[in-house]
Amino acid sequence: MTRSGQPEEGIRVAVSTAILTLRRDGAQAPRIALPLVRRTRDPHAGAWALPGGWLDTREGLATAAARTLAETTGLAPSYLEQLYAFGAVDRSPSRVVSVVYWALLREEDALGAAAQENVHWFDATDLPELAFDHARIIEYALWRLRNKVGYSRVAQGFLPPEFTLADLREAYETILGRKLDPANFRRQVDATRTLIPTNAFRTGNHRPARLYRDATDVELADRGPLSPEETRTS
Amino acid sequence: MTRSGQPEEGIRVAVSTAILTLRRDGAQAPRIALPLVRRTRDPHAGAWALPGGWLDTREGLATAAARTLAETTGLAPSYLEQLYAFGAVDRSPSRVVSVVYWALLREEDALGAAAQENVHWFDATDLPELAFDHARIIEYALWRLRNKVGYSRVAQGFLPPEFTLADLREAYETILGRKLDPANFRRQVDATRTLIPTNAFRTGNHRPARLYRDATDVELADRGPLSPEETRTS
Repeated sequence: MTRSGQPEEGIRVAVSTAILTLRRDGAQAPRIALPLVRRTRDPHAGAWALPGGWLDTREGLATAAARTLAETTGLAPSYLEQLYAFGAVDRSPSRVVSVVYWALLREEDALGAAAQENVHWFDATDLPELAFDHARIIEYALWRLRNKVGYSRVAQGFLPPEFTLADLREAYETILGRKLDPANFRRQVDATRTLIPTNAFRTGNHRPARLYRDATDVELADRGPLSPEETRTS
Repeated sequence: MTRSGQPEEGIRVAVSTAILTLRRDGAQAPRIALPLVRRTRDPHAGAWALPGGWLDTREGLATAAARTLAETTGLAPSYLEQLYAFGAVDRSPSRVVSVVYWALLREEDALGAAAQENVHWFDATDLPELAFDHARIIEYALWRLRNKVGYSRVAQGFLPPEFTLADLREAYETILGRKLDPANFRRQVDATRTLIPTNAFRTGNHRPARLYRDATDVELADRGPLSPEETRTS
């Protein structure tokens, strides 16, 4: 940047993280859920907020997001992707720029985290009163997810390494908020050539369903030419 | 964010902007060009940098990006999209988080800007010595552009409202850095149903070429549910 003049004092940098998972409760359709932390101090004491905290002088943005996420929720995803930097003047009583990260977690990994005091998982469609602009940040994350599912394999972040086409379609349906035709969905997935059929089947109450896995080692997240230092958290 | 502890002092927030355009010099293949500003003070005095400056306490991030871009280059694009927040610990002698914006400009709009002292347009493939991590920021912007051209109409940001299929293909070829088969390209564009043929033709040294325009009013940039305040700059 060109440094014209002196920087203003009083602008602080925070990080927050939106962790999304697919929650299945028995026979119900899965829903997108995310962990929130109840604030214990002002501003917005008692309201719920995305896990996060202040950026430390000696750590990168993704490292700070991973640290504050672990401190508040015990969650430690292997990868966090930068979502957006929010910096509206009136988003907090003091001037705070929040760099928000996000990750999709499989339900098992999400449940595996130790339950922490003041942390609760909420359905994305049934959120409590949120601090700051966090309701809009979550709205933005869900919009990005819907948008991205159309051109990337982001939905597979919700699934285990082997999954049925019905699992994958269900993940898409939950993200998009509408039902998809199973035959059309299979054709579209076939056309992308990104899934490899395995010789394994899931059996149960339904007829056996073939398990698939990803065709490539390409990472699910968009890192591009960014360095591991800038994006990887573990 | 959950405010655990006090924020560290000494972290400052800057904004920078990468303005990309397609530059055509007569019969040569077009190239991607961007404006850089020569730094007049340390750190990195004499090196070239993306236009930018410090975030002011009383302005939003996109507003700051637009202001500093106008101050340094005279350019005033109607829309800036947030690219990424760069915050590695060692990217500057002091601790600076830079929120980087970007926009694609048509060549006419780029040339229309008054030439400013210490501002120069460089070919993206022939950059000078750059300050800070700006070489990597530009590399990241070009990667995002290549990536995005596969699933969005981003390339049309380089073109006037009416353009030929050859114009559009040439923009794609320049972004992707490789030749595309004209017949295949036409088929793929037809399949997207996003272009409307007009009744106008471009005439000249070649046989007349039909002009097309966008089929929709959908904006070229990804704003999603973000408010105009957060993204619009004019």
